[in-house]
Amino acid sequence: MRKPTIYLAGPEVFLPDAAAVGLRKKELCAAYGFEGLFPLDGDPLDGDDQEVAAGERLVRAIYRRCEAAIRRADLGIFNLTPFRGPSADAGTVFELGLLVGLGKRAFGYSNVAADYLSRCRERAALAFDAAQNVWRDPNGMAVEDFGNADNLMIDVSLIERGGHPMVRRDVRTSELFYDLGGFETCLRLAAATLAQSP
Amino acid sequence: MRKPTIYLAGPEVFLPDAAAVGLRKKELCAAYGFEGLFPLDGDPLDGDDQEVAAGERLVRAIYRRCEAAIRRADLGIFNLTPFRGPSADAGTVFELGLLVGLGKRAFGYSNVAADYLSRCRERAALAFDAAQNVWRDPNGMAVEDFGNADNLMIDVSLIERGGHPMVRRDVRTSELFYDLGGFETCLRLAAATLAQSP
Repeated sequence: MRKPTIYLAGPEVFLPDAAAVGLRKKELCAAYGFEGLFPLDGDPLDGDDQEVAAGERLVRAIYRRCEAAIRRADLGIFNLTPFRGPSADAGTVFELGLLVGLGKRAFGYSNVAADYLSRCRERAALAFDAAQNVWRDPNGMAVEDFGNADNLMIDVSLIERGGHPMVRRDVRTSELFYDLGGFETCLRLAAATLAQSP
Repeated sequence: MRKPTIYLAGPEVFLPDAAAVGLRKKELCAAYGFEGLFPLDGDPLDGDDQEVAAGERLVRAIYRRCEAAIRRADLGIFNLTPFRGPSADAGTVFELGLLVGLGKRAFGYSNVAADYLSRCRERAALAFDAAQNVWRDPNGMAVEDFGNADNLMIDVSLIERGGHPMVRRDVRTSELFYDLGGFETCLRLAAATLAQSP
């Protein structure tokens, strides 16, 4: 029987040793009976006309490779650790939406436990708007205060499409984009979910 | 004949006068022959059991209302102006992925013209990694340098699914989340696209 496939989304693709992290994730997948699909697997220009490798063509090839892997995957595990701001990596968030739109199961983790409001407060002075009963950022935009890890569309999609809230835990700063404890918890949740209703 | 419907995604839902901005967007949609669906339309708890309105229940109702509007929409226009970091609002990006996963046409605009690398450079000291030929942020993560407005998944999805690159223009700082010039350009592109292949 074919092993269920998991799309391995996350900002670790930007690490200097991205391939090594991808390999560790795929080995963990195998230990839980899954096949992991890492976004950097394979050459994006493979099987394509190799003559023109200009920027425009490369980015479209990378996009298509990721989309094809998401379409092939049975489910997805998303590293939603905050990235260059209070929210998760935009590419990972896009891919979560895409996978949900395709009707697949999604699991997610963050290596920062604090909620979205606390993290926004660390980055900017927020003001309480008593009339509308919300916190506002320096642009006057309301800051979500639901105890979620991120924008509610992200947190709730995981509950709706995977049955579990985001796995949130703090790790050592040096391990922010390397620690796979939350990832492994997601693998366990995915395995238990598939055992109940394949 | 039913007017084509457009999902109106963007961080303006967080403005103190969000409903007024939504109304202006819907009026512009009507002027171009579309019906606009604004995320805040209707009561998220409408038709639902009104007894328990706790946080958990509210966020799931909001999520479902947005997802239902995206499923109902024929296409989407996304306000991808940078929000609390170098990337677009995470909720808007999730919704873009969802709409693309549902196979619909997507158009997008940003009220900041500068590319992703320039914006990252304004926020943090980047270092050039000559060995791998990339810029790196203080966490050692590569910064995309393709001239795109945001993560390539976002920019390329618009080209693949709407046929046009993101509409990027600078606006007055006070109008950052109010200016609808880029939005109106997207409406024109959407109308022209539908006229060619409905």
